[in-house]
This record gives sequence, C-alpha cells and structure tokens, in this order.
Amino acid sequence: MADIIRVTVWNEFRHEKTNPQIAKIYPEGMHGAIAKHLAAQPGITVRTATLDEPEHGLTADVLDNTDVLTWWGHMAHHEVKDEVVERVKERVLDGMGLLVFHSGHFSKIFRSLMGTTCNLKWREVGEKERLWVVSQGHPIAEGMDEYFELPATEMYGELFDIPQPDELVFISWFEGGEVFRSGCCFKRGSGRIFYFRPGHETYPIYYDKAVLRVITNGVRWARPVAGPKRDFGNRKPLEQIKSKE
Amino acid sequence: MADIIRVTVWNEFRHEKTNPQIAKIYPEGMHGAIAKHLAAQPGITVRTATLDEPEHGLTADVLDNTDVLTWWGHMAHHEVKDEVVERVKERVLDGMGLLVFHSGHFSKIFRSLMGTTCNLKWREVGEKERLWVVSQGHPIAEGMDEYFELPATEMYGELFDIPQPDELVFISWFEGGEVFRSGCCFKRGSGRIFYFRPGHETYPIYYDKAVLRVITNGVRWARPVAGPKRDFGNRKPLEQIKSKE
Amino acid sequence: MADIIRVTVWNEFRHEKTNPQIAKIYPEGMHGAIAKHLAAQPGITVRTATLDEPEHGLTADVLDNTDVLTWWGHMAHHEVKDEVVERVKERVLDGMGLLVFHSGHFSKIFRSLMGTTCNLKWREVGEKERLWVVSQGHPIAEGMDEYFELPATEMYGELFDIPQPDELVFISWFEGGEVFRSGCCFKRGSGRIFYFRPGHETYPIYYDKAVLRVITNGVRWARPVAGPKRDFGNRKPLEQIKSKE
Amino acid sequence: MADIIRVTVWNEFRHEKTNPQIAKIYPEGMHGAIAKHLAAQPGITVRTATLDEPEHGLTADVLDNTDVLTWWGHMAHHEVKDEVVERVKERVLDGMGLLVFHSGHFSKIFRSLMGTTCNLKWREVGEKERLWVVSQGHPIAEGMDEYFELPATEMYGELFDIPQPDELVFISWFEGGEVFRSGCCFKRGSGRIFYFRPGHETYPIYYDKAVLRVITNGVRWARPVAGPKRDFGNRKPLEQIKSKE
Repeated sequence: MADIIRVTVWNEFRHEKTNPQIAKIYPEGMHGAIAKHLAAQPGITVRTATLDEPEHGLTADVLDNTDVLTWWGHMAHHEVKDEVVERVKERVLDGMGLLVFHSGHFSKIFRSLMGTTCNLKWREVGEKERLWVVSQGHPIAEGMDEYFELPATEMYGELFDIPQPDELVFISWFEGGEVFRSGCCFKRGSGRIFYFRPGHETYPIYYDKAVLRVITNGVRWARPVAGPKRDFGNRKPLEQIKSKE
Repeated sequence: MADIIRVTVWNEFRHEKTNPQIAKIYPEGMHGAIAKHLAAQPGITVRTATLDEPEHGLTADVLDNTDVLTWWGHMAHHEVKDEVVERVKERVLDGMGLLVFHSGHFSKIFRSLMGTTCNLKWREVGEKERLWVVSQGHPIAEGMDEYFELPATEMYGELFDIPQPDELVFISWFEGGEVFRSGCCFKRGSGRIFYFRPGHETYPIYYDKAVLRVITNGVRWARPVAGPKRDFGNRKPLEQIKSKE
Repeated sequence: MADIIRVTVWNEFRHEKTNPQIAKIYPEGMHGAIAKHLAAQPGITVRTATLDEPEHGLTADVLDNTDVLTWWGHMAHHEVKDEVVERVKERVLDGMGLLVFHSGHFSKIFRSLMGTTCNLKWREVGEKERLWVVSQGHPIAEGMDEYFELPATEMYGELFDIPQPDELVFISWFEGGEVFRSGCCFKRGSGRIFYFRPGHETYPIYYDKAVLRVITNGVRWARPVAGPKRDFGNRKPLEQIKSKE
Repeated sequence: MADIIRVTVWNEFRHEKTNPQIAKIYPEGMHGAIAKHLAAQPGITVRTATLDEPEHGLTADVLDNTDVLTWWGHMAHHEVKDEVVERVKERVLDGMGLLVFHSGHFSKIFRSLMGTTCNLKWREVGEKERLWVVSQGHPIAEGMDEYFELPATEMYGELFDIPQPDELVFISWFEGGEVFRSGCCFKRGSGRIFYFRPGHETYPIYYDKAVLRVITNGVRWARPVAGPKRDFGNRKPLEQIKSKE
C-alpha cells in the first residue's frame, strides 16, 4: 500500500494548441495542470503523454511502467490508433487503473471497455453544477464535503448510456434541470475504472480544489493490486473424476 | 406482458455438419433442438438463423422482428462478419434480449458487449456438473429446484473474465474441483443479456429438461420493454439558467 | 405469468382522518386512491389494510393471500407492532413483493429489510421535482417518457442512507438544488422491493398519471416467482467424501 | 492511507473454555490466534474483546477507538445484548469496518445489517474446501493464488440467504457437492462489511496462511474513510424556488 503510484496523464492536447482562449487557461495543456497537481501529492509520480507524440506517447514501455492512466480526449477520438487502444485495454484488464474525464466518455478505450455507446445529452451555456456524494465512506469521496459546486460548466444529462456502475459515487444537479451520474466506478478484468464527469476545455475545471481532490482519490483507488495471475485455458482435474470410471 | 415473444435461435451450425457423432445427437442442429422446444411454449414464436446463410441469417429485417436472440457458436467465431455483429449490438442496446450459450462466451457479440476477454478455464472429460440456484426468486429460476445436475459435460472454470454480473443466478460445481458463474445477467443499453453455461456439441445438453426450462425462462426475462426513447445530443434547458444572467 | 396478482394496499390512514385539507384531497384515503387505480388494471386484484384495523389489517391470512404489498406510513411508524413487522418481513423473504412509498422510508419494515437508518434530507415548500429514468429498458419504466415532473412536492435529498440499490431506475432533480435516488430496486430473500419516492399527504401525487403508471409497473415487477424452496440446515453429502476415508 | 488501523478482535470465547479439544487448538482462544497474527502486520494495532467481559468488551470507548471490528460467534449469539448490537451497528453505519467470520453469519449484528435471515446449509464431516478467487484485482485477494484449499472443514452450502453482495470475491467448492459464496463485500452506511466463510472451532483454520492473508487484506480494505459527514433532516433550499412565487 505504501508503494509509489506511477501515473501517466494522457491528453489529446489539440484544443489548447488551436484556441487562444483555451491556451490562456491551460498554457501547459490540461495534462500539464493535472500532472502538476498529482506530482505534488505524496506517493505519486507522474508523466504525461499526448496524441501527437509517436504511438500517442503510450508505448508498451510507458504502459508497462504505468499504474494508473488518466484520459482526456474530445475532438480527435477517431485519430487514436486501434492498436494503441488495444494495448491500453490489455493493460487495464491486466490491472492498470484508468480514469476517464469528461468528454473522454466517447473515447475508443472507454467505449470498448463499457460495451455501450456511452452517449449522453449535453449543453454548453456555462450553467451551475452541484455534485452530490451518494456513496458515503467511498475512498473516492475521502475528505470531501457532501457536495461541491462548479459555478459554470458544460451540462451532461441522462440518459448516460453506460452499464450500471459497480459503485455510483457522485450524482450531478444542473441548473437547467438535468441530473447525471458523474462519478462511476467499474472493474473490468483486474483493472479499476473511474469515470469522472467534470472538465471542459474552456472552463478552469482542472484548477478546482474539489475536482483535483477527486482525481487524487481516484488515482489512489485505481492503483493495481497484486492478485492471482490471470490464467486461462485447458486444465487437468484437481480432483479424481469418478463419473467417467 | 401478454404479447408474443419473437425469438430467433442462432447457431453456427458447423459441428453438426462435419461430425457424424454430433449429427446423430442433433440431426436438425442444436438450433433445431432449441427452436423446437421454444416453439412449444405458450406466447413464443421462433425462427432460426445460421452462419452460412446470407448475412448469417441476421438481416436488418430479421433483427427488426426479433425480440430475443439466442446465440451458439464455437469454431467459427472469427467468420461472423463485423457488420452483422455491429447490427446485432445496436439492436441489443436498443432493447432486444440476448441469450448466449456455452462456447458463445467467446463470440464477437458477447465480448463486444462485455468489454473484457470473456476467457475461462476448460476441460473435456465428461465430468459431472451441478448447478446451484443462488438468486432465489429470480424469474430465470422460476419452477426450478435448488439445483440440477448434468451427468457428463465439459468443464468451464473460474476465472471467468467478465464484468461482475448485475445478477448471478447459477453457480456450477464440477466434479474435477472447479466452480463457475454459470448463469449471469447483464443489462447493456435497453437490452437484457443472459449468459448460460451449459451446452456442448457432443453431449445432449439441449434435451435436458432443466436446461430447457432455464432457456425458456431466460427468453421471457429478456423480452424487450417499451420504455423511454434512447435520446441523446444537444439540449435546450428545461429550467431558466440564472447563473449566466 | 398470466396469473392474477393479488395486491394489498396498506396505509397508515391517520393524516386523512385528522386534517380536513388532506381529507378533501383523499376522501377515501391515499390507499383508496391507489387501490382504485390498481383495481382498474388488467390482471390485478386489490384489497386495502390500515393501521387501526385489528393486526393492522395484516393477518397471516391476508398476507398468505397477498402477492404484492404496498406501504405508506408517516406519523405513526412506531405504532406498527413488531410482530406484524416480523410477519411481513418473513413473507417478503419468502417471495411477496413490497412497494414502499415516500415517507415509508422510515417504516419499521423498510428499515429492517435494508439494515440501515434510511434517513435523508427533506424540505416542504412545494417545489418542482423532475424524475429522470436512468435505467433504460427496465420493466418499472415501461411506457414512461424519459422524465416526468411533479409541479409541487416535498423535497427528499441525498444522502439517502440505504444500501446501494440492485438497480436504480429514477433520479430526482429538485428545484431547490438537491438530487435523490427516487426509484430503487432491491431483492431480499426471494422478495422484490421497490422504493418509490413520490407521494405526500398534502399534494395530489397519487392522482398523477406517471406516478400511477410507475406503481402499476412496480406491482407487476414485484410479483412473486415460484422458484426453489428456501431450504436450510444440516445436509448429507451429495458426493462421496474421500478426504475422510 | 498510512495511518494506523486499530482493530478489535471480538470472540464469543465459549467453545474454547468448555471443550478441551478446542482449547488445545486455540489455547488463547480463536481471538488470540487472530489477534496475534494481525498484531504482527505493519500499520495495524490490535485489542481483543469477548462475550463475557462487561458490555461484551465493546464499550462506547472501545468502539470509538476501533477502526475495524472482527466478529466470531456461534453458540451464544442470543446472549449478545441488543444495546451492544445497536451500538456496534451505529458505528458501522458511521464508518467502522466489520469482518464477520464463519458462524458469525447468524450473529445479531450481521443479520441486522443484512436484513435477511442469513441462513444456509451445513455439514460437519471434515471435508475438503477449495476457495476460488472470482474477483481478480480485488484488494482482499491481494497476494493470493487463484485458489486455496482447506483440507478438512465444515461445509456451508447455498442457498446463503444474504442480499446480493456488492462484490463477490471467493466462491467455495466442497468435496460433498456444494458451492458457497465465501467472500462477500457489502457497504452499509459509511461502513464496509466483509463476510468470510472459513473458520471453525475444531479445525485449525485460523493458523492457515491463506486464511490469515485474507483477514489482513480484509482489515485493510475495511478501514474507515474520512468522508462527508452523515447529515440528515430539514434543509433550506440551495437555489431560489421559483415555482412557489
């Protein structure tokens, strides 16, 4: 439990390069803001990776040395190569944690792990969001108040087309009248997956203290566990088979 | 609730054509045996479809007129065309029920809906299996005893690499020492999915009364429900947004 | 599946007798309004029972002839006798369905089946509530739109101290800023339990078409299933024990 | 995360005092064996408490200074005072972890938290049990192999009358033909609960390395999380209520 958690913060990193307003909010990219925060937490080391690096920065070597991967993507989901998605998926099933933020709901990796469309409703008018903790005592809500607010954000509304989460940690209230399952825990294979709704390129969400706290908690919750080897295939009996004698 | 349930029984239908021993057990194919049973149940109509038919027998028209699809495949999973898999998946997410039997755990459609490898352990020595009902009061166990036995069967053992089922109905005990989650309920989109382990081409599993009872119950449980339209995308506010004024 | 469902609608029936305003809304009691609606549905027969009847109207004979019990209580939870609660609980575990409405969250029977305090936040200013369907394809949402509204209602807010529901069907949005898990499915023993939030003595909630539709759907969903006998205790081996020889 | 976990190991401690054979296996009681093991683990401090101490050793002060409570009882469940059960329950709902072992399934505290009878089948002929990990990557299976065996044990068989566990970690195979959900995770209120089947007064189960490993893992998994205050009752609106104006 005391071991270092090695996090790779992945970002599409396109909006920040093309939109001056966004570049002003996130001069080092959203990944830069998230990585800076995580690097300041005890027991966590951080690297970043982005879409336009070779192999999107997610080489086998990088993934082999990643305990928890965080994912932000939006306008270029389709540019993520299938072989990289497959490589990430194998690592998740083998135990690597995965945190998916905001518009990452539509990423190839998240949809492939969920098996559903991951579609939702949305609106971009900068309305107020209030996230309520509905799973008291959950590690991802460690140190949180019973709710926190984001004064101006993009709305995501139900229906959110995901499998029922193994645990539901946050439900969002939106000023415009919608609700959303905003903090959703899943396990796939040996890997833990946390979808966390907040985040948008034009609001300074990744500087919000509560959001950053949840991300830190999520990283700690999603760290791999050294469990039984995933072992499949043909097997000899462990007991004598008598019905065949 | 009183409406007719339209079932399509899909079968790879290859073993039966190439192996005389199997052809003798299932002269009309496994789909024939399953379809014959289901057709005799009140409120159910049945058609069949197989791999070697055009579009694998799963045209848009057939799927549009199918409430519950059952799936058996083994040696030719890779021959199922991706566009047909995608078509079936869309229908499941839109509400069509799906029952996956035995070696169908490795079918493209099941793996795509689960998001995991769906791998497992196996052994083929004809050992005894005992399936215990662990979800009392579940519709899929309607009319069952607390367990039923198959005298000679292929073993499937844990670890079964699936997401945790929404409901676990059966756990199998195997003579050789393994256990298996043999009756697993999932919901993906609006569609209900039931994985049921028993079944093998060389044992007369699909003539077993308990197995057939479970299949009938599964069909009834998985029938579509006429619920809200799955509606996504950009939305106007339902309430006045004041934080922007 | 075609059998008649025998429903007993239970009501505390005190507010209606002491408060003229409430008596005006529900001249035959809330149970009267609910029972009248259910009795008009195909395949359902209804009786009512209230607190001030002998044994609260829930004799062994009544319960033996009840498939689904609905429960409304508020001011007199503590007057419900423990032996009646125990009798109801045994029947639920044995398969009888239970629908708990609104302030019934604090009833002895619901708290005993949940194992938690079932506490929550509340406010009574007649604000607007919007209930979103979050489990597409669920039988309890059959025939519903993606949301429905109640123009003036008491607010219930998270944290709602219940075990995580087996399935979450509705989430409420409240005008005053809260959210609530308003439609929660549980199974305990062989019995299905549905908690449904709407309902209040001074608003005409139990005349609302959407609310009544959900109640009808809930009754159908909660009907008992004739499954394996619940059988416990000392057992002889089913297989020869060799490790002891 | 690095904080000390304060464990209280509770034991009925009657069998050991009255049965010389059991006393020989557990000269310091089962609680002594468990406590000795846990006390040797980093980051864990241990005290013990037993039935015949005043207030069963579970005073308000002891509970206030307990992060995780472990429970073994069998022949004297009914002697545990209701007010102590209530006190323990409040602490669990408030965040204290609870590990329940073997015959503790019938303890007042476990049944009260589950809301079901917690009944099961059993047989005492010293047969072999094999526990399979079915939740890969779960913290309670940290460091385990894919299964472990107990050569001679009491059998517990399905149906086990519990709510469906939030997570199912172990399934047992028994030589005599039964299966059992042997490692079950629940959350109630803010508290984490783990039921672990192995353990019996006449077999030296609590010296088994795999069993002890699971207990240690369980303690770490069940430690309390400092989350939002559990806060209920009447509330003022967080947003302006317009529908009433």
